[in-house]
Amino acid sequence: MTAPLASAPGERLRPHRRRRLALVLATHEGTSRIEALSDAVFAIAATLLVIELKIPQGLTDSARLLDALATQWPVYVGYVMSFVYLGIYWSHHVHVFRLFRRTDHVFLKLNVLFLMTIALIPFPTALLGVYWHAHDDRTRTALLVYASSLFVTASLFLAIWLHATHNRRLVDPELDDDVIRATTERYLIGPIGYGASFLVAWWSPVAGALIILLIALFYILPVQLVRHG
Amino acid sequence: MTAPLASAPGERLRPHRRRRLALVLATHEGTSRIEALSDAVFAIAATLLVIELKIPQGLTDSARLLDALATQWPVYVGYVMSFVYLGIYWSHHVHVFRLFRRTDHVFLKLNVLFLMTIALIPFPTALLGVYWHAHDDRTRTALLVYASSLFVTASLFLAIWLHATHNRRLVDPELDDDVIRATTERYLIGPIGYGASFLVAWWSPVAGALIILLIALFYILPVQLVRHG
Amino acid sequence: MTAPLASAPGERLRPHRRRRLALVLATHEGTSRIEALSDAVFAIAATLLVIELKIPQGLTDSARLLDALATQWPVYVGYVMSFVYLGIYWSHHVHVFRLFRRTDHVFLKLNVLFLMTIALIPFPTALLGVYWHAHDDRTRTALLVYASSLFVTASLFLAIWLHATHNRRLVDPELDDDVIRATTERYLIGPIGYGASFLVAWWSPVAGALIILLIALFYILPVQLVRHG
Amino acid sequence: MTAPLASAPGERLRPHRRRRLALVLATHEGTSRIEALSDAVFAIAATLLVIELKIPQGLTDSARLLDALATQWPVYVGYVMSFVYLGIYWSHHVHVFRLFRRTDHVFLKLNVLFLMTIALIPFPTALLGVYWHAHDDRTRTALLVYASSLFVTASLFLAIWLHATHNRRLVDPELDDDVIRATTERYLIGPIGYGASFLVAWWSPVAGALIILLIALFYILPVQLVRHG
Repeated sequence: MTAPLASAPGERLRPHRRRRLALVLATHEGTSRIEALSDAVFAIAATLLVIELKIPQGLTDSARLLDALATQWPVYVGYVMSFVYLGIYWSHHVHVFRLFRRTDHVFLKLNVLFLMTIALIPFPTALLGVYWHAHDDRTRTALLVYASSLFVTASLFLAIWLHATHNRRLVDPELDDDVIRATTERYLIGPIGYGASFLVAWWSPVAGALIILLIALFYILPVQLVRHG
Repeated sequence: MTAPLASAPGERLRPHRRRRLALVLATHEGTSRIEALSDAVFAIAATLLVIELKIPQGLTDSARLLDALATQWPVYVGYVMSFVYLGIYWSHHVHVFRLFRRTDHVFLKLNVLFLMTIALIPFPTALLGVYWHAHDDRTRTALLVYASSLFVTASLFLAIWLHATHNRRLVDPELDDDVIRATTERYLIGPIGYGASFLVAWWSPVAGALIILLIALFYILPVQLVRHG
Repeated sequence: MTAPLASAPGERLRPHRRRRLALVLATHEGTSRIEALSDAVFAIAATLLVIELKIPQGLTDSARLLDALATQWPVYVGYVMSFVYLGIYWSHHVHVFRLFRRTDHVFLKLNVLFLMTIALIPFPTALLGVYWHAHDDRTRTALLVYASSLFVTASLFLAIWLHATHNRRLVDPELDDDVIRATTERYLIGPIGYGASFLVAWWSPVAGALIILLIALFYILPVQLVRHG
Repeated sequence: MTAPLASAPGERLRPHRRRRLALVLATHEGTSRIEALSDAVFAIAATLLVIELKIPQGLTDSARLLDALATQWPVYVGYVMSFVYLGIYWSHHVHVFRLFRRTDHVFLKLNVLFLMTIALIPFPTALLGVYWHAHDDRTRTALLVYASSLFVTASLFLAIWLHATHNRRLVDPELDDDVIRATTERYLIGPIGYGASFLVAWWSPVAGALIILLIALFYILPVQLVRHG
């Protein structure tokens, strides 16, 4: 008689554990293909950047190859900037997705739109690489396109975050208020900063580019400073 | 004597749980690489679209860069349309694969053929981007190719669905009849609509393009409206 | 006194189950990144095929766009053939990896070499697409390159299989002898057939291409016919 | 009374097992997206190498196609070398990531920088493929760029390893001292060797290329020789 009781507590725990495991698996299933798609888009956009690094062709004078390679420096800077930029977005994407417990329709669509701007990045990067040298209106045009593209990307990332955390729609209900507020503030810097860069670039492309650089530096700072701060 | 009995019920449950875990793992294994391949193809096809956004080269007049960029607008529209279109297919692919419990040989082959049409999308997109401006037979030709490509993609997606749900071949035997019927109807809209777009485009490319746009809007609507409706 | 004995059988089972779970996880970890890398290479090689489908440029005569597109037909055939071909290899890769329980150093290296030939496929495909029309020695050259590339791919796939199954080195020790033998025979058809295609192509490129087509049809047949036959 | 005791030992073990499972899952979550991103970057960089294999165009003389293909041999050698090279880095990446238990901010950033150099590899490979034939200063320039690129890649890989193992920061605290020391020594060979190759290439590009080849051969040797040695 006691024995069934003896095993009963263990049995009573089991459904709980089963539910927990099911939850872990369901959570994983819920976002795993979104994450797989996103990781692939990030990786491909980043790796496609190398296509803009052109091999100087038809150089007959041997000494001029190094010159031709050196002249391309804005292309290399663009490669590094955009790769780092994609790396930053990717690590923030990983960070916020760890906080998400559910997905919904709007979230899925916003993520696809966000990935659309991520996949676009090689285009303004190449434009900037080609026309940075021009030192005239073309440089400004190229930077305005670059800053606009970053502005839209950052706005969509903020939109995903706001959609997911509004009334804790998709995040853990126990997620700390301060964490949400601090993260929102952090992700507001992007659209504001890139918007400022866009405006400043009308007056001075170099100053506009510096603002973009400063924002990148800001986002390279550890998320943990905000998270556990 | 009672103790073995006490543990016995627990033991008796264990094979059941083991089977359940094995099932989860087997299901995962059964489709995980199909999903991985599919996600990668979707991501690459979507990200390759950016290659069609050409950097205007050799512009000496600084003012003309913005013009040259603006003239490309059908290419940008094509980028957005095809990216959204791939995003929609991807999310429906995720949706139906959640309902699949098994795979079989025909299913695998159909999925590869479906991915072949997904990977093709950058081609008709580029064609449309280049010749939309032409405002003559070339516009029609480009749209006919685009609509045909969408028609074949949608038909193969429908074929996968019909193959999987026929006699509940690959789906959960307990999957609701109404869900299957509603989803089938939904996925019939694609081939019918793109077929109509193809026919209408002979008469008016603009009208044909509008039909394609309407179908996209239809599929952007939440699946849940059908699923739980 | 009886109680410890009562729980003991359960406890005795547990290490077994823990080991089983650990084995599943270890097996998964053992090959999961190999599979991830392989899936990505298959997907990218397949999706890069679309790059060979060129948009006819600079056509001023509107009627000629359809002609220009139609003239490319060997490129489309090449796209379909190589995509299907990659799909077949991928599904066999999935099939044999399900039988593998361990990895070793040689296996890893062979898989990288195999992927190197998989990633190469867009090159001979493009070559064949461009020169099939030539109807002279260039057609033969293109087909010889294509057949050689398939021969090396098939040989490396066979090498992976032989390495893994020799003395059941990397497969389940209980894997049936007949399954191994039948699969070996099946994977021998590839190198032999592509070798034959290479030789025949010297005499007639069309006949060589037909052999390649027949081998593809053979491999499209369900693996299960062999496996459970 | 005895029954609760009977089940108690089992219950006492359960939290331990739950923690172990949680740890496995957390570890997996901790690095799974880093691994997914990394695998994708490796796969894309490797597969993009094929783009450098150009189809000879506009050959009217049929006999010259084979010549034109044969003349490209440094491009094929570059394809094989860089593919193998990426395969080696990938397998070492897999190897060390199996030893990592945690991630931190610096680690994430170092991995992104490392991937940036991995994704760059098609560029110096193409450069070397185009200019190896030149047999003058351009060959040297191309090899210097190639060796520099390998030097930076190898240095970043070493930096990741040193960061992770310093005071066993991110690895298993029980990881053997000898394993760490032997692996560190092994990963020191890369930067030193590529640095040497860079210096030697000033004097003789062929000798510089040979050093790079020797380093590749060294890293193809099984990790296990070091690991269990």
